[in-house]
Amino acid sequence: MLITPRTLRGFRDFLPPAAIERERVIAVARDVYRSYGFAPIDTPALEFEEILLGKGGDEADKQMYRFEDSGGRKVGMRFDLTVPLARFAAQHIAELGTPFKRYHIATVWRGENTQRGRYREFMQCDFDTIGTTAVAADIETGLVIHDLFRALNLNATIRINNRQVLTGLLDKLGLGQQAVVILRALDKLGKVGREKVAAEIVEAAGTTAVQAEDVLQLSELTGSNDEVLAALEKLLAGNERGLNGVERLREVLAGMAAAGAPPERVKLDVSIARGLGYYTGVIYETFLDELPDIGSVCSGGRYDNLAELYTKEKLPGIGASLGLDRLLSALEELGRVANSATAAPLLIPYFDAERLHDYLKLARELRSEGIGVEVYPEPKKLGQQLKYADRRGFRAALIVGSQEFAAGTCQLKDLRDGTTHEVPLDAAKIAAKLAEVMAKTR
Amino acid sequence: MLITPRTLRGFRDFLPPAAIERERVIAVARDVYRSYGFAPIDTPALEFEEILLGKGGDEADKQMYRFEDSGGRKVGMRFDLTVPLARFAAQHIAELGTPFKRYHIATVWRGENTQRGRYREFMQCDFDTIGTTAVAADIETGLVIHDLFRALNLNATIRINNRQVLTGLLDKLGLGQQAVVILRALDKLGKVGREKVAAEIVEAAGTTAVQAEDVLQLSELTGSNDEVLAALEKLLAGNERGLNGVERLREVLAGMAAAGAPPERVKLDVSIARGLGYYTGVIYETFLDELPDIGSVCSGGRYDNLAELYTKEKLPGIGASLGLDRLLSALEELGRVANSATAAPLLIPYFDAERLHDYLKLARELRSEGIGVEVYPEPKKLGQQLKYADRRGFRAALIVGSQEFAAGTCQLKDLRDGTTHEVPLDAAKIAAKLAEVMAKTR
Repeated sequence: MLITPRTLRGFRDFLPPAAIERERVIAVARDVYRSYGFAPIDTPALEFEEILLGKGGDEADKQMYRFEDSGGRKVGMRFDLTVPLARFAAQHIAELGTPFKRYHIATVWRGENTQRGRYREFMQCDFDTIGTTAVAADIETGLVIHDLFRALNLNATIRINNRQVLTGLLDKLGLGQQAVVILRALDKLGKVGREKVAAEIVEAAGTTAVQAEDVLQLSELTGSNDEVLAALEKLLAGNERGLNGVERLREVLAGMAAAGAPPERVKLDVSIARGLGYYTGVIYETFLDELPDIGSVCSGGRYDNLAELYTKEKLPGIGASLGLDRLLSALEELGRVANSATAAPLLIPYFDAERLHDYLKLARELRSEGIGVEVYPEPKKLGQQLKYADRRGFRAALIVGSQEFAAGTCQLKDLRDGTTHEVPLDAAKIAAKLAEVMAKTR
Repeated sequence: MLITPRTLRGFRDFLPPAAIERERVIAVARDVYRSYGFAPIDTPALEFEEILLGKGGDEADKQMYRFEDSGGRKVGMRFDLTVPLARFAAQHIAELGTPFKRYHIATVWRGENTQRGRYREFMQCDFDTIGTTAVAADIETGLVIHDLFRALNLNATIRINNRQVLTGLLDKLGLGQQAVVILRALDKLGKVGREKVAAEIVEAAGTTAVQAEDVLQLSELTGSNDEVLAALEKLLAGNERGLNGVERLREVLAGMAAAGAPPERVKLDVSIARGLGYYTGVIYETFLDELPDIGSVCSGGRYDNLAELYTKEKLPGIGASLGLDRLLSALEELGRVANSATAAPLLIPYFDAERLHDYLKLARELRSEGIGVEVYPEPKKLGQQLKYADRRGFRAALIVGSQEFAAGTCQLKDLRDGTTHEVPLDAAKIAAKLAEVMAKTR
């Protein structure tokens, strides 16, 4: 009796084309994070249940994979990288010192309703700066996001707001007490539209329809960043918290511009609220210019106290998270995925059955030139091997038969346009010609 | 009431120095695997229990993290990457085609007894070639292992054997029926010594003491690879399976030598048995010359049928697994770990409080030159910032105060030897000087 090979619903196999693309994006994120001095950390997939429970709200608790291990310990699988970071920071901060800048690229699990097209296993790519309230860290967070999308060769717009500004505005409207519920409603503006948000504000925060309309109008302030800043200053006159928030935004925008992030990529947007309760300062969302409707692909913000549940030490910080799966979907939708099943550009067909050693030696020499090379393992018919090369997505094949070995030449076949180039049988020369071929049709 | 921040026994936090080193080794493995045409895949951490149960033996079943998910499905966390590969191959082989070469670098979980110093969560770095019995794949597996350790700058010796040879020898001794038990006993030779292995063979396989002694003598054949091959041929005269096994070993050794793996790094060793039942051909173990006692750091071998539990399609293959955690322990023991808490070499102290924008701009220009740069976020005293740079393990600090800004220069301070170099305030020139400094004391 065979066991049916299948995966759990909401869980995915990554075949080579998808895995290659994911590795590429992760490598870009890692390089950008590192270039700013963020260092990697890792934490366990499993934590004591008490570490995770109640930290991400009722929904997170309900979705958490929880069980008793064979030693009777109640454990859970991490559902994000923020709660583990809080636990980690509380545990190690004396050794780590501050400011502490870390990135964490790892898998998390949530028993989501898969009917909404959600996955139950996905990766997060977070970076955070802990232990400082400095505006430099706020500016840098925006710069990292900007560099990330530039490195991915994607046009993205970073939308910035400040919770202090929103709270100040609500204070002025006499709605300070209902801030959390109102911000949560406001956060849905892009998804559900104006009317539904207004209704939710009235219902959940108990405001009048006029008050809800006031809130919505505030969040709809438009104009250049400078115009919005000026309008906010006017609206917030006399509210210290709100004015400080505006000043902070001004500094962040000026700092990002000074450091070379083009102003058209950074947009002040009073409607950005971020649902999560723990943000207290500047907040970020990032939208792809070509595909804004998929939602924010990189979001984050400043918080006052990361680890208050685990330590008395106050750890303010700021960070953001790249939405890897959403970004990968976007790249696919935009036709920006190479869709190759191999990370090596060159296949050497095993053509002359007597020459295995020569093929292996040639492959090694080419690897020394920095070229990824696969040698087909069996001396099958050339046509069959070239078909394999095509299907896998190799960029070129290097054909060397007995004739070529005798003459000291080889044929470099461009598998994209079918042209063939005769090259001396010399690794450096083959490498140069391959570089030429690969540049040609990029 | 604070929650005590702690991790489960057998699970580890990776602080930056350890995480940086692990990322480095993983990147080396990935590059080597890719250079041979292996492509990445990934599979879920959770599988249906029926996929995993009974595949790794009683011990694996007992150690598996298993539970019922909230939908009442019985699930388990993967305990290795071989069982998921078998399931994956059975499910996707029509789409993948053969030969199929994949690598898989991922976390696995086993509820091991932690008193033996084992971890319950660790990473595996596997590579396999599926769907071919060609000797080229056997040779290549050895070459990948060789290149891996060369790329890690470690002297390692690959020990090779062939299950066919062992089985042939046991056939000749009339012990063919007891092969599995005997090989399992033989596998412990390095760990428990000759006497205990002899006792286990007598007890578990029901042999006489003389037969056990014969087995041990066979496994102790010494000499050059050619001498051992010749001796084996003599011993196996008339046993076809065994002789085929010897011939295969001869081809693998010749192929590896032809492709440039130095012969002194590849040693035929008849005592290598590999405990796992599914190996059927050539097998590999790899020992560090400087630290052989920690055991094999990269092991694998050929198998006849990867996925027989999930599909009728016969999928022969060969692969090996880098023991990442063991290797990292070894690197630490050998003092080969850089032990830096940052992946960026340069810190720019935030020295002149009025110049934040200039520091940010300079940092961006240096990043364009390919240099990782951290700007300290607060304008604290220089001494305090340099102390931070030292503790984090930055290689150099770039000191620019109001005087330097006015003069268009800066001070590049080598944090290892304390020397300071005056450099024009120009990103390219600073990059060149930093490269010089870093080369100096490498």
